[in-house]
Amino acid sequence: MTKAHRAGPLFTDLYELTMAASYFAHQVFSTATFSLFIRENYLQRNFFVAAGLEDVLNELAAFCFSEQDIKYLQTTGIFSKDFLSYLAGLRFSGEIFAMPEGTIFFANEPVLEVTAPIIEAQLIETFLLNTIGFQSMIASKAARCIHVAGDRPLIDFSLRRTQGQDAGHKVARSTYIAGFAATSNVLAGKMYGIPISGTMAHSYVEAFSSELVAFSAYSKTFPDNSIFLIDTYNTMDGAENAVTVAKEMKKNGHSLIGVRLDSGDMVDLSQKVRKIFDDAGLSDVKIFASSGFDEFKITKVIAEGAKIDALGVGTKVGVSADAPYLDVVYKMVHFKDRDVRKLSPGKITLAGEKQVFRKSDQNGRYLEDVIGLRDDIMDQGKPLLKKVMENGKILQPHPSLQAIRDRFKKNFAMLDDRYKSILEYNAYPVKLSSPLQKLQEST
Amino acid sequence: MTKAHRAGPLFTDLYELTMAASYFAHQVFSTATFSLFIRENYLQRNFFVAAGLEDVLNELAAFCFSEQDIKYLQTTGIFSKDFLSYLAGLRFSGEIFAMPEGTIFFANEPVLEVTAPIIEAQLIETFLLNTIGFQSMIASKAARCIHVAGDRPLIDFSLRRTQGQDAGHKVARSTYIAGFAATSNVLAGKMYGIPISGTMAHSYVEAFSSELVAFSAYSKTFPDNSIFLIDTYNTMDGAENAVTVAKEMKKNGHSLIGVRLDSGDMVDLSQKVRKIFDDAGLSDVKIFASSGFDEFKITKVIAEGAKIDALGVGTKVGVSADAPYLDVVYKMVHFKDRDVRKLSPGKITLAGEKQVFRKSDQNGRYLEDVIGLRDDIMDQGKPLLKKVMENGKILQPHPSLQAIRDRFKKNFAMLDDRYKSILEYNAYPVKLSSPLQKLQEST
Repeated sequence: MTKAHRAGPLFTDLYELTMAASYFAHQVFSTATFSLFIRENYLQRNFFVAAGLEDVLNELAAFCFSEQDIKYLQTTGIFSKDFLSYLAGLRFSGEIFAMPEGTIFFANEPVLEVTAPIIEAQLIETFLLNTIGFQSMIASKAARCIHVAGDRPLIDFSLRRTQGQDAGHKVARSTYIAGFAATSNVLAGKMYGIPISGTMAHSYVEAFSSELVAFSAYSKTFPDNSIFLIDTYNTMDGAENAVTVAKEMKKNGHSLIGVRLDSGDMVDLSQKVRKIFDDAGLSDVKIFASSGFDEFKITKVIAEGAKIDALGVGTKVGVSADAPYLDVVYKMVHFKDRDVRKLSPGKITLAGEKQVFRKSDQNGRYLEDVIGLRDDIMDQGKPLLKKVMENGKILQPHPSLQAIRDRFKKNFAMLDDRYKSILEYNAYPVKLSSPLQKLQEST
Repeated sequence: MTKAHRAGPLFTDLYELTMAASYFAHQVFSTATFSLFIRENYLQRNFFVAAGLEDVLNELAAFCFSEQDIKYLQTTGIFSKDFLSYLAGLRFSGEIFAMPEGTIFFANEPVLEVTAPIIEAQLIETFLLNTIGFQSMIASKAARCIHVAGDRPLIDFSLRRTQGQDAGHKVARSTYIAGFAATSNVLAGKMYGIPISGTMAHSYVEAFSSELVAFSAYSKTFPDNSIFLIDTYNTMDGAENAVTVAKEMKKNGHSLIGVRLDSGDMVDLSQKVRKIFDDAGLSDVKIFASSGFDEFKITKVIAEGAKIDALGVGTKVGVSADAPYLDVVYKMVHFKDRDVRKLSPGKITLAGEKQVFRKSDQNGRYLEDVIGLRDDIMDQGKPLLKKVMENGKILQPHPSLQAIRDRFKKNFAMLDDRYKSILEYNAYPVKLSSPLQKLQEST
């Protein structure tokens, strides 16, 4: 497998470094705890899915400024020689509590907490927000699609329109965590071992003298692995051509996997195409569809009776088009011997090192969460934040991507359907423990 | 400078490779031309700004499957040994016409055309769309902000919320092309030589016993380079504390650059804070603002009389929140000896190898564009697509980022203000030449 490209410590906002320089100048090295959470559920998403922790841990375990990094910082003229020498020797030595990837969480719940000397805890802010925020956003969006698609497999087709290269790979991984069956992204297949999928574009059809010739040519290259794209000229004619070739394939002991619709009225076309294949005795040929799908369009076409067996889901999920960012923040909640919080209008944060406790019924179905202090004693309620790093060392081997995917699937089954609604906002109950509540009043 | 991470040829959708395998099996090696353009101006953006070409050319000039890549493809079981041997020896040998970065363009205009053996032209599709699409989208969004901000400097603050790491760097570069003054992204500073900017976060203020102590501490570390964040507890008190420290700095022969507002009513607060500083004889202290700014909010607060000197522009521009993807496509327009086009409903493309001709008045102000055939003879009209690659070799050295930025600035001055409107859709006139029009009728 290819390793993900490492960001390095310069993947940061300049102010993290200027603050660090000032802390260094004033010899402020005390320990701080920062809490990472989604502040404002600005889109009224009912739930989120934690993702990105593996990248975070790998990055922090290797945190180190290179000679080149230090040289560049020197050229900016902003930093003292002493501070740069200090940076050159700096490693991440902190402790991290985090929800495992695949955990379902809600707004205001800390998904990760960092305790480290303030300079270290500060320098990693930008990277943590970018990594956890983006991957969790995509996993959450993908989970919504999975929910509405029922047992129809979904395939990530977004690579051409993701926001840059890294996004493409993380979308493949995050959608796979949420239950997507495969990705079209070959490099993500190599990086993460995700199944890859895809067959032909319109240009393939156009490169032959006719659609029939194109289908036939393709079936000869991939006799057991063909899905024909049938809308290059006219979908109905395309279906008839596909039938002709599928019958030819049958004669030779092979079978056509399916056809793909990529434009037009998905409900009407899929029904007509289904009928064409059924009438031709080819009920085993599946109908794939790809055409601006997201959770909303999937819901709509299924409700209207589309005969679609599997869906390629692209751009709108790959950029989370209706919610292309999460209001994810990283706030200091404890410093030295005191709990701290910010009071900026609309941006008040909860002081104190925390834990999230999840209460379930006897069948494991989620009832409510309680955000408490990390050392709160709860009669019931499973703590969701686990210690995953200590003294800058990763504590457990990373779970496999398959294990993360399985965890999410298990968790998702425990979440009541009303919180899975893509259209209605139903607030899952999240309370504060009384010790946490009291702390806010006294801070 | 750090080189941008190279994507490699596996940065592709699987179907590019399966089509290639089938072309190979059928010995289809003829030359094809593909055209990259924004199909549907789904958001009625008036104009776009071309960006991403440098990455495209660097990638294609180095196009080569590694041994590891081939090994991975082998493990998928999809491809024949012969085809994999062929891939191992494959280099990009094609020709590219493209609009230089910083060029203003419009929907349906090809921003790039590739002519190459069909397998090569096909394999690079996903990468080209991702690269040109995303960077052009961000440059276009940033240009809208630049237009409404007037002479107020804008600074890219988006890194924590961009969609992954690569996006963060490309946002820094693309916003700089459009005229942003700086970025908070330190690694982008190193990669591209973009000025970097930033001073302090709320946590810095909270790490000291009081806001006053925090400001004072910061001013000692950066006596000539301080911008205080004044909204951690109460903006008015923060302004008074900043005044106290600014006066102290003056006594010591230094001066406070500015203060930053990050929450609350930007109009009211900026006016009040301005008055506090003016009354204190500190009219040179600038007011920076950062708080969900995009072209819409910038326009609004300026119209309402905000006293803001410079703006940090973050998330909403970094993900192009109102238009997080462009409908950018890559379509075959010529194959072997024939022009081709697709007729899928709503997705009809223009056949033929093309050129875009821009007509201007005697002062250089843009009048209209004509999309023509590449060999059309025009009395007037400057061709916008330049040959930038031949036989897989880059033809000219890359222009510097500064030169690209200057080109955009010059071009943008030639675009009539009505096409810069962020609220009204005004379609810049784009016509088809009669030879191109005739070709469509005969294809």
